[in-house]
Amino acid sequence: MPRVAVVMGSDSDLPVMTKAIDVLKEFGITPDVSVASAHRSPDRVAQFARDAADNGIEVIIAGAGMAAALPGAIAAHTHLPVIGVPLSGSPLQGTDALYAMVQMPPGIPVATVGIDAATNAALLAVQVLALNDAGLAKSICDYRVQMATRVEQRSQELQKHL
Amino acid sequence: MPRVAVVMGSDSDLPVMTKAIDVLKEFGITPDVSVASAHRSPDRVAQFARDAADNGIEVIIAGAGMAAALPGAIAAHTHLPVIGVPLSGSPLQGTDALYAMVQMPPGIPVATVGIDAATNAALLAVQVLALNDAGLAKSICDYRVQMATRVEQRSQELQKHL
Amino acid sequence: MPRVAVVMGSDSDLPVMTKAIDVLKEFGITPDVSVASAHRSPDRVAQFARDAADNGIEVIIAGAGMAAALPGAIAAHTHLPVIGVPLSGSPLQGTDALYAMVQMPPGIPVATVGIDAATNAALLAVQVLALNDAGLAKSICDYRVQMATRVEQRSQELQKHL
Amino acid sequence: MPRVAVVMGSDSDLPVMTKAIDVLKEFGITPDVSVASAHRSPDRVAQFARDAADNGIEVIIAGAGMAAALPGAIAAHTHLPVIGVPLSGSPLQGTDALYAMVQMPPGIPVATVGIDAATNAALLAVQVLALNDAGLAKSICDYRVQMATRVEQRSQELQKHL
Amino acid sequence: MPRVAVVMGSDSDLPVMTKAIDVLKEFGITPDVSVASAHRSPDRVAQFARDAADNGIEVIIAGAGMAAALPGAIAAHTHLPVIGVPLSGSPLQGTDALYAMVQMPPGIPVATVGIDAATNAALLAVQVLALNDAGLAKSICDYRVQMATRVEQRSQELQKHL
Amino acid sequence: MPRVAVVMGSDSDLPVMTKAIDVLKEFGITPDVSVASAHRSPDRVAQFARDAADNGIEVIIAGAGMAAALPGAIAAHTHLPVIGVPLSGSPLQGTDALYAMVQMPPGIPVATVGIDAATNAALLAVQVLALNDAGLAKSICDYRVQMATRVEQRSQELQKHL
Amino acid sequence: MPRVAVVMGSDSDLPVMTKAIDVLKEFGITPDVSVASAHRSPDRVAQFARDAADNGIEVIIAGAGMAAALPGAIAAHTHLPVIGVPLSGSPLQGTDALYAMVQMPPGIPVATVGIDAATNAALLAVQVLALNDAGLAKSICDYRVQMATRVEQRSQELQKHL
Amino acid sequence: MPRVAVVMGSDSDLPVMTKAIDVLKEFGITPDVSVASAHRSPDRVAQFARDAADNGIEVIIAGAGMAAALPGAIAAHTHLPVIGVPLSGSPLQGTDALYAMVQMPPGIPVATVGIDAATNAALLAVQVLALNDAGLAKSICDYRVQMATRVEQRSQELQKHL
Repeated sequence: MPRVAVVMGSDSDLPVMTKAIDVLKEFGITPDVSVASAHRSPDRVAQFARDAADNGIEVIIAGAGMAAALPGAIAAHTHLPVIGVPLSGSPLQGTDALYAMVQMPPGIPVATVGIDAATNAALLAVQVLALNDAGLAKSICDYRVQMATRVEQRSQELQKHL
Repeated sequence: MPRVAVVMGSDSDLPVMTKAIDVLKEFGITPDVSVASAHRSPDRVAQFARDAADNGIEVIIAGAGMAAALPGAIAAHTHLPVIGVPLSGSPLQGTDALYAMVQMPPGIPVATVGIDAATNAALLAVQVLALNDAGLAKSICDYRVQMATRVEQRSQELQKHL
Repeated sequence: MPRVAVVMGSDSDLPVMTKAIDVLKEFGITPDVSVASAHRSPDRVAQFARDAADNGIEVIIAGAGMAAALPGAIAAHTHLPVIGVPLSGSPLQGTDALYAMVQMPPGIPVATVGIDAATNAALLAVQVLALNDAGLAKSICDYRVQMATRVEQRSQELQKHL
Repeated sequence: MPRVAVVMGSDSDLPVMTKAIDVLKEFGITPDVSVASAHRSPDRVAQFARDAADNGIEVIIAGAGMAAALPGAIAAHTHLPVIGVPLSGSPLQGTDALYAMVQMPPGIPVATVGIDAATNAALLAVQVLALNDAGLAKSICDYRVQMATRVEQRSQELQKHL
Repeated sequence: MPRVAVVMGSDSDLPVMTKAIDVLKEFGITPDVSVASAHRSPDRVAQFARDAADNGIEVIIAGAGMAAALPGAIAAHTHLPVIGVPLSGSPLQGTDALYAMVQMPPGIPVATVGIDAATNAALLAVQVLALNDAGLAKSICDYRVQMATRVEQRSQELQKHL
Repeated sequence: MPRVAVVMGSDSDLPVMTKAIDVLKEFGITPDVSVASAHRSPDRVAQFARDAADNGIEVIIAGAGMAAALPGAIAAHTHLPVIGVPLSGSPLQGTDALYAMVQMPPGIPVATVGIDAATNAALLAVQVLALNDAGLAKSICDYRVQMATRVEQRSQELQKHL
Repeated sequence: MPRVAVVMGSDSDLPVMTKAIDVLKEFGITPDVSVASAHRSPDRVAQFARDAADNGIEVIIAGAGMAAALPGAIAAHTHLPVIGVPLSGSPLQGTDALYAMVQMPPGIPVATVGIDAATNAALLAVQVLALNDAGLAKSICDYRVQMATRVEQRSQELQKHL
Repeated sequence: MPRVAVVMGSDSDLPVMTKAIDVLKEFGITPDVSVASAHRSPDRVAQFARDAADNGIEVIIAGAGMAAALPGAIAAHTHLPVIGVPLSGSPLQGTDALYAMVQMPPGIPVATVGIDAATNAALLAVQVLALNDAGLAKSICDYRVQMATRVEQRSQELQKHL
C-alpha cells in the first residue's frame, strides 16, 4: 500500500513530476500516482484528499502550474502534510504557481518547494517518513554522503581539466 | 431573490468588498453576501457554488487575498460567470492574489478585475445582467454620463483654482 | 447575426486568439472577428464599440499585448461586458499587458482572463450568454463533464504506463 | 496661448502633477491644465488631442495611474509629442502605470519619464521647446548650473557637519 | 524534551515567529526556541542542526529575512524536515527571503510556507508529527472544524449587520 | 548635417537600433550613428553630448541594455532632448535597462520608450522635429493614415480567411 | 589622508549612508564624505573619480537611488574598487537602484551590496583594506566574534523570557 | 600559490565561471578553482573558507544559482572579501540568485556583480589586488584604454557600413 501519493494537475506535468517518482523509488517507496485538477475535476480532488489517510497515504506531493490550486485544495480536505511543487511553463514562468501555492491563508499550510523542484519534493517526503523509519533515515544520510562525494569528485575532475 | 452573490474569503475583506455591495445597491440590486473560505471551509464553498444557479444567482463576485483560490474554487462548481477581486494586504501587495486568480487553467475562467477593484466587479456584474434588462442597461449609460460629467466638472474646478 | 465579437490589436495575435474563435464555434457561436488598434486606429475602435450593441453583439472579447489598451478603449465606449486577453510576446512576457488590462480605473471594468488565455475568454463569454440560453448552459455542463472525464482517463492511462 | 498642456486622469493626481505646473511656470510657461480620463471621458480626450495642435499646444504632458491609458489615448489622436508620467498610488506602486505607458505598440510613442516624475516631464517639455527658443535653451543651462552648484553646496555643508 | 525547534535569524524576528510558538503550544507542544544566524554565527547553526535529531527534535522551523540562508543552512546539516518562514521587513518585502528559501538546489529541500506565515509553519509541523500521533491528528481535525465553524459564524454576523 | 543622432552602447545593439535608423530615413532624416559606452568610453560620451548641439544635432536617441546608463549620461551633458531605448538581452529581459533609464533623478529627464522600441524612438524624434517643420508634420499624419489603413486591410483579409 | 571615500547622490541619502561612515570610524577609518550626482554634477563626479587614487583613496563607497548611476559613473573613471549601495525610497523600493547598479556591462564592475546596506558597504571596504593591514584584519575577526556572541546572548535572553 | 579562488556550486556553472578564470589569467593570475556546494557539501565549504587566508588566497569569487547561498556561506567563515556571481538558469532567471546573494544581513557582506557577470567578478578581484600591486594597476588602466579604443573602432566600422 503506497505511503506517498504524487498528484499532478495535468498529464503534461509528468516530465517534471517523474523526477519525484524516480527519487521515491530510489528510496524504495512506490508512490500512488494520479492526475487530478482542482478546477476541472474538483470533486475527484476532494474525494482523493478525504480518503488519503484511510488509504494509507502519509504524505501527498502535488504539482501544478499557473493558478496552481491543487495542493491547497488537497490540503483543505486532509490533515496529512501536503508538499506543493509549483510548475513553470506559463509566461509568468512559475511565479504564478509559486505565489498561488506558498501564500496559503493561516490555517491550511502547503509545504512548498522550488519551481519545478520535484526532486526536492520527494526528498522532503522521505525525510518526513524517516522520522519513524530508521532505515529511511539511514538512506537519506547515505544519499547525502554520496552527494557530497560527487561534488568533491566533480571538483577534482574540473581541476584536472583546467 | 438576489441575482448577485458577493462572497469573500474572510470578514476582514469587508472594507474593500463593501464597495461592490454599495455599487450593486446603487443599481437596485441587493446581493446575497457571505463569507466562505476555499481552504478553511471548502465544502461550504462547493455547496454554495453548486446551489447558486438554483438559488437564482446569476453572477458571483468573489474577493480573496494571497493564494486567493476562492473564485476559482467557486467557478469549478458552477457554470455561472464568476468575477474575481484580488485583494492586497499581504507583503506581496496583491500580486499573489492577482496571479492566483487570473491564471486559471483552460476550461474554468475567472473574470478578474483589478487589485481591490470591488467597484469594478460590481459594475461588471451589472453589465452582464443588463444584457437582458433594458432598465439596467439604461442605468449604466446614465452612470457613465455622470462619470464623464464629473470629470468635466473637476477639470473646470481645477482650472479655477490654479 | 453574431452575438460575440472577437477583436485583436494586430493580425499577429491570431495564433492565440484563434483558440477563442474555435471554442465559440464549438458552442455553436460564430463570432464577428476583426483587427483594430486602440492606438493605430482609435476612431475605428471607438466606432466599433459604440455600434456593437446595436449590431447585436452581446459580449466582446479583445486580445492585446504590451500597453494593451484595446479592451479598455472598447469598454469605454460600450456598456456591453468586455473580456480582455492579455497577450505575451514582449520581453515583459505579458505582465505589461496583464497590468495594463486588469488595472482599469473605477467605473470601466474589463473582465480579464489569464495571459494568452483565449480559450477561457471564449468560455467566459459562453457562460455569460448561457444566463439566458438554457441550451448553452447545458452545453457548458456537458463540456465540463467531458473535461472531468478526460482528466480521469489521463490519470488511468498514466497509471498504466508507470 | 499656452504652448504646453498638462492633463491628468483624475483631480486626485494634482499633488504630483502640480510639480510639472510649477516647473513650467519657473521657465515662464503657463500651461493649459485639465482633467480628462481615457476611460471615463474618452470622447473628451480624443477631442482634446485632435484640437491640441490647432490650439497652439506644442507638447502634451499626461499623468495617469494604474491602467494609465491616458497618454497613449492622447498620442493616438495627435502628432504632437506626448510625455507620460506614470503615477504610483495603486498596490502595484506604479509598475502598472509604467508598463501601461511605456510599452506602446510600434507607431505611436509616448515619451515616458519616471514614476511620479512630473518635474522631469516638465523639464523634458522645456527642452523640446528650447530647440527653437534660444532663451529657453539658456534658461535650461542656467537651471543646470544652479543644480550643480546646489549639489556642491550641499556637499560642503555636509562635510562641515560631520 | 522538545520535539519541535523554532529558530530565528535575529531576535527582531520574534514578533512574527511568536505566532508559531503560540500555535505549537495550543497543540500541547513546547518548542525549543533559539536565535542563530547562518551568517553571523554559522558554526552555532551547523552544530545546532547536527545535534537536533540526537536532542529529540523531529521538526525544525526556521524564520529568516533577506538572504534568508538559515533554513537551508540547517537543512544542509540534518535529515530532519526543515520548515522555512520567509520574513518580510526588507525593501523587497519578503520576495528576497522567499526566493532565497524556496529555490533550494536539488538534494536539500526546505518546506517553505508563505511570507511571515509562522502560523502555517507551526501547523505544518503539527501535521508532520501527527503522522505518528493519533491524538495530534484528532487535534488538527478539531482545529479545522473550529476554523470552518468560525468562518460560518462570521458569515452569519456579517449578514446580520448588512 | 544630421539633425538626429543615434547612439548605442555596443555594436551588438545594432539589430534593434537599426529600426530607428530605418524609420528616420523613411522620413528623410539621415542620422549620425555611433557607438559609445557610458562606462567603457565615458569621456567620449561626455564629449559627444557636449558637442551635440553645436554640431547641429537636435534630438539624441540612445539605446542601451542592462545598467543602461548611456541616455542618462548623455542627458547630463546636453540640454537637447534625449530619447532612451531600453534593450532586452540580459537575463532580466530589459526590466534592468528600463528601470535604469526611466527612473532618472529630478532635473535630468530621459524620454524613455518601450523595451527594444527603437521604431517608436525614431517616431518620437520625428514628432519633436515636426514641431517646426510642417513637411515632417504632414509626413507623420500620412504615416498614421497608412497605419490605420493597414490595420483595416488586415482586418478584412483576416475576415476573408476565417 | 582618508583611505576610503563615501559619496552619495543627494544629501537626503545621509540617513542611510551615515551607517557606513559610523562603521568605518568604528574601525579607525575616517572617510572622505561628499555629495555628487552622476546626472546633476557629472563633471564633478568624473573629476572626483579621476583624482581619487592620487588623493590616497583606496576604496570608494557610493550610494544612490532610482537610476543610481553614481557608482558606475565613478567606476568608469578609476581603477579603484567601487562599492555601490542601492537606496530604496522610490516607488520601486530599491529594485530600480539595485538593477541599475549591479547590472554593469562587462569591463567596469561595481561591487554591489544590499538595498540600503551601507553597513555592509563599509565592512566590505574594511575587508579590502585589511588585505594589507594585519591590524584591520584582526579588528574584523574581533568584530565577528562580537557579532556571534551577541547572537548567542540574544538567544539566551529570548529563552529566559519565553 | 594562487591569490584568487574561484568556487562554483556545481560543475554545470563552469561555462559562465570560466569567463572569470580567463580574465584572471589574462592579468597573469592563475586562480585556485573548485566546486563546492553550500547545501550539499557544507563542511567542505566552511573548511575551504576558514583555510583560505592561510592558503594565501586574498580574494574569493563564488558563483551560484537559485538559493545561491555559496558566497554568503563562504563569507561567514572568512574575513577575505568575497565576490558573488548570481547565475541565471532557473525559471526565475537569476533574480532568485541575485536576491539571495546581495541581500546579506548586516555584518557579512558579499560584493555582488551582475547576473552571470563572471567577467566583472574577475575584474573586481584584479582591482582589489591592484591596490598593492602597481603592475596590476597599470594592467587595468591598459585594459581600459583597449576597451575604449575598441568601442571607438566599432563605432567607426559601423559608420562605414551604414
